[in-house]
Amino acid sequence: MDSSYIQVTPIKQSKIDTVDFNKLDFGRVFSDYMFECDYKNGEWQTPVIKPYGPISLDPSARVFHYGQAVFEGMKAYKDDNDDIFLFRPDENLKRINKSSERLAMPAFPENYFFDGLTKLLHLEKNWIKKGFGNSLYIRPFVIATQPAISASPSEDYKFMIILSPAQAYYAGEVRVLFAEKYSRSANGGVGFAKAAGNYAAQFFPTSLAHKKGYQQIIWTDANTHEYLEEAGTMNIFFRIGDKLITAPNNDRILDGITRKSIIQLAKDNGIEIEVRPVSVAEIKDAARKGELKEIFGTGTAAVINPIVGFGHSEEDFELPKLEKSYASFFKEKLMNIQYNKSQDPYGWRVKI
Amino acid sequence: MDSSYIQVTPIKQSKIDTVDFNKLDFGRVFSDYMFECDYKNGEWQTPVIKPYGPISLDPSARVFHYGQAVFEGMKAYKDDNDDIFLFRPDENLKRINKSSERLAMPAFPENYFFDGLTKLLHLEKNWIKKGFGNSLYIRPFVIATQPAISASPSEDYKFMIILSPAQAYYAGEVRVLFAEKYSRSANGGVGFAKAAGNYAAQFFPTSLAHKKGYQQIIWTDANTHEYLEEAGTMNIFFRIGDKLITAPNNDRILDGITRKSIIQLAKDNGIEIEVRPVSVAEIKDAARKGELKEIFGTGTAAVINPIVGFGHSEEDFELPKLEKSYASFFKEKLMNIQYNKSQDPYGWRVKI
Repeated sequence: MDSSYIQVTPIKQSKIDTVDFNKLDFGRVFSDYMFECDYKNGEWQTPVIKPYGPISLDPSARVFHYGQAVFEGMKAYKDDNDDIFLFRPDENLKRINKSSERLAMPAFPENYFFDGLTKLLHLEKNWIKKGFGNSLYIRPFVIATQPAISASPSEDYKFMIILSPAQAYYAGEVRVLFAEKYSRSANGGVGFAKAAGNYAAQFFPTSLAHKKGYQQIIWTDANTHEYLEEAGTMNIFFRIGDKLITAPNNDRILDGITRKSIIQLAKDNGIEIEVRPVSVAEIKDAARKGELKEIFGTGTAAVINPIVGFGHSEEDFELPKLEKSYASFFKEKLMNIQYNKSQDPYGWRVKI
Repeated sequence: MDSSYIQVTPIKQSKIDTVDFNKLDFGRVFSDYMFECDYKNGEWQTPVIKPYGPISLDPSARVFHYGQAVFEGMKAYKDDNDDIFLFRPDENLKRINKSSERLAMPAFPENYFFDGLTKLLHLEKNWIKKGFGNSLYIRPFVIATQPAISASPSEDYKFMIILSPAQAYYAGEVRVLFAEKYSRSANGGVGFAKAAGNYAAQFFPTSLAHKKGYQQIIWTDANTHEYLEEAGTMNIFFRIGDKLITAPNNDRILDGITRKSIIQLAKDNGIEIEVRPVSVAEIKDAARKGELKEIFGTGTAAVINPIVGFGHSEEDFELPKLEKSYASFFKEKLMNIQYNKSQDPYGWRVKI
């Protein structure tokens, strides 16, 4: 790999010593450098790496008005030998380009993505801390920059990668509300894409759930609210007896990389897994019978997030506390691969 | 009204002489000044007016990642006496705050909105050209500015108003496609709001429609695709015989100000109007029988946009060319009110 074409503007001084790596709020502190690439005149220009700092945009830039923006979430991990690893990064590139296509935005070239990301991470290797659970969160994103407020696709874009150090994510006891009124996405909509607008749309219903004592919402299908889909920043798995169930992908549900890794791990570890529609009625029924053992969310930020209870239609259900949960089994399996502590028969771990 | 608290930073030189007002592309040229107000520490700060120019944001600003952004569209009109008018501006304020609420954003204060807008328009009065059809397009918008990429509502926002001179809008012959696969919004979603993300989601399906020879899409309900809803930047009216029909508002359809004005005008001018679900089957059936006389879109930018034909399920329908269309009747009525050429029994016209 020759990434010498990506020019680096050096920082004057690193801010790394001002950061307390044992006290990190997610997504608030950013590293010294950022990767930037502009799309103009129908093509991506030569990317650059430069000191992290503000970007200047015309107030008419389309991203501000029409939400033409997509993103990805990834992590870089360090093992005890100071080697740096990514987890299935090809999937992130594929997905950001799929998201971009749905929002009428140009695909980002594979070589710019991997050359830029690798160069950036090598430059910022001190920001990746050793230790199980520590990581450098990677946020690639694309925004529409053309200064024009007609409601049509932008001609200019900016692709960026910014980095934020992260600790093991613990969200506290997570109780979820099954959605009955509000929805996250429509058939034929953009729910499968990491489109910026999908997230803002969830904030208000989620704040209502907070007030009722739930931390997150599990979204249901917008049409009937009878089927459980995803949690907005996580895919969702249900364990009934010893069987694991998760909703199939469709154009409303994000094709989560952690999700598909867990489906694979389940298959290869003798855990029965069904990928099929999951109804609210089925889950409530299983909970009443004591057969619902676990619900957990999966995603890059949280890896696996166990859920302690759920509410639906003014009724609350508690989940049992298990000694040997699937959630902890999968979390360990996955993190061992990510942190180079186990074999990786799948080729998911990529050393950079 | 005392707007002296809104400080104005003067421009060095106006760029108005560089603008050809007879050759304006919509939304590409902006006036000399802009209005800006920041939300910090739980309150809106004192707004300012300053020279139009780039804004600087951290790359982690939430608007770039989570689409927390809403906007409005308005116009300022000038009559032959150089008086300046707005059309139902209270409705725009109400709606931007309704949009903001749905996206978990703070409401903007009424006095800041009207003081700021009035002061800005008086400062920019030379940008409002006389003549039927000429206007100064007004774009208020709010964006989430907090530098933090956790998926939750921003704590900081920026409210801005920018201005763009506009000529009478003529979109050419508009042929529309009735949506069969893609959707604009879900039940329980944000379709009723002018949320930024609603617009980017339409660009790709619209580009597919363009390739098939249609300029716009009329969105149908995401569930069955059997009912006609709105066109993304326009509400839609259908005329069967002498009766006008338009879909009712719901949480998927924008509560258009032009739309509700036309409903009122229809009622007061003896035109039968029904506000009820409109099915694709009914419209195709009426077209086949020769009873479908008109389809037109309504919105601030276009005022009224007549549609010459539509396609659905690989079948195309042409609409008759009428001498006395409802579209031209309403357009004249509405513009006479807007440009102070007729009485305004409704109090819609506001002189500033």
